[in-house]
Amino acid sequence: MNLITVSREFGSGGRELGKCLADLFGCDYYDREIITAIADSRGLDEQYVEQVLDSHGWKNIPIRYGRSFRMINSGRMGVDLLVEQKRVIEKIGAAGKDCVIVGRNADLLLAEYQPFRIFVCADSASKLKRCRMRSADGENLSDKELSRKIKEIDRVRAQSRDMIGGTPWGQRENYHLTVNTGGWEIQRLAAAVAEFVKLYFGRV
Amino acid sequence: MNLITVSREFGSGGRELGKCLADLFGCDYYDREIITAIADSRGLDEQYVEQVLDSHGWKNIPIRYGRSFRMINSGRMGVDLLVEQKRVIEKIGAAGKDCVIVGRNADLLLAEYQPFRIFVCADSASKLKRCRMRSADGENLSDKELSRKIKEIDRVRAQSRDMIGGTPWGQRENYHLTVNTGGWEIQRLAAAVAEFVKLYFGRV
Repeated sequence: MNLITVSREFGSGGRELGKCLADLFGCDYYDREIITAIADSRGLDEQYVEQVLDSHGWKNIPIRYGRSFRMINSGRMGVDLLVEQKRVIEKIGAAGKDCVIVGRNADLLLAEYQPFRIFVCADSASKLKRCRMRSADGENLSDKELSRKIKEIDRVRAQSRDMIGGTPWGQRENYHLTVNTGGWEIQRLAAAVAEFVKLYFGRV
Repeated sequence: MNLITVSREFGSGGRELGKCLADLFGCDYYDREIITAIADSRGLDEQYVEQVLDSHGWKNIPIRYGRSFRMINSGRMGVDLLVEQKRVIEKIGAAGKDCVIVGRNADLLLAEYQPFRIFVCADSASKLKRCRMRSADGENLSDKELSRKIKEIDRVRAQSRDMIGGTPWGQRENYHLTVNTGGWEIQRLAAAVAEFVKLYFGRV
């Protein structure tokens, strides 16, 4: 199996880069699909699953039962969902098909398949710009608040990697390639990254 | 001018990667040439210049005058040589020819020319192996001692960047691309890196 994992800073365009790579190689792509699988398997709302995983379950989060909401402390749920996420990712690995997996510590969880490991980063200004472009989320936030949110999500990502063990999130030795997307067009970057991928999987 | 700067961990093969890139693009290559220029300009021994710059001038270093040696405290000399190094690198920039410059904070010193900035790293085992292969330096050192030496040289590199200012050495946002050479053949890696370079300078 030719497996590519894309770890990324929030707002760096890692998701887009991963999608471009999957398109280039005509292979499967997993990102939100993993959230959907977890939600389906546990009978939960997708948005809720995402919120719990993103906040690491240390927060009170509104949960929807049918049409009613209530606040729950998501601590225990957070661990449950991380376990379920691990199971979903391991299943993707076991299926043995060429694919790109974005985030969710797939590089660690599927280390046995020797994935090509990419880390995607960008300068703060580029990340702010991308966040504002792609969603309505940041609309009401000042630059300072949005920057804080970006850092907080990255902190949770780093922490969720620490929980699995292995080497720290974002540490350059953990990845074959660390790509800074600042000032680049992601699609063209993907073509250059693909050269490394081909080299790694002996296709050159 | 198309300028490529290669910053690197000691033992990661950054020098070799830089040389391969210069060969691929048929352009000038500066690495030890900078040490030679400093030594020539100041009437000093090359090896001495290198030692002072590598140890950051905080150590007592033997200096050769003609055929005699004496120990000097290289503190003041360290600063002098860093100033001279800066002058030599700025001269290379001002000459305006396409080139690859390895190390010596050229990415910062020549920022105005918007170089393509590469950082080269590797896992510890690969760096140890490379150090043992390429020189007699490490022959009498245990793995632990050689690892310590590698870390010390990197610490000096980080410190010498801090002296100039700007962002920390090795921090991923500072570079367009961070390449992990562990397990790769440098020459083939260089070809893949070249795709990014071409993209950056609009040659694709």
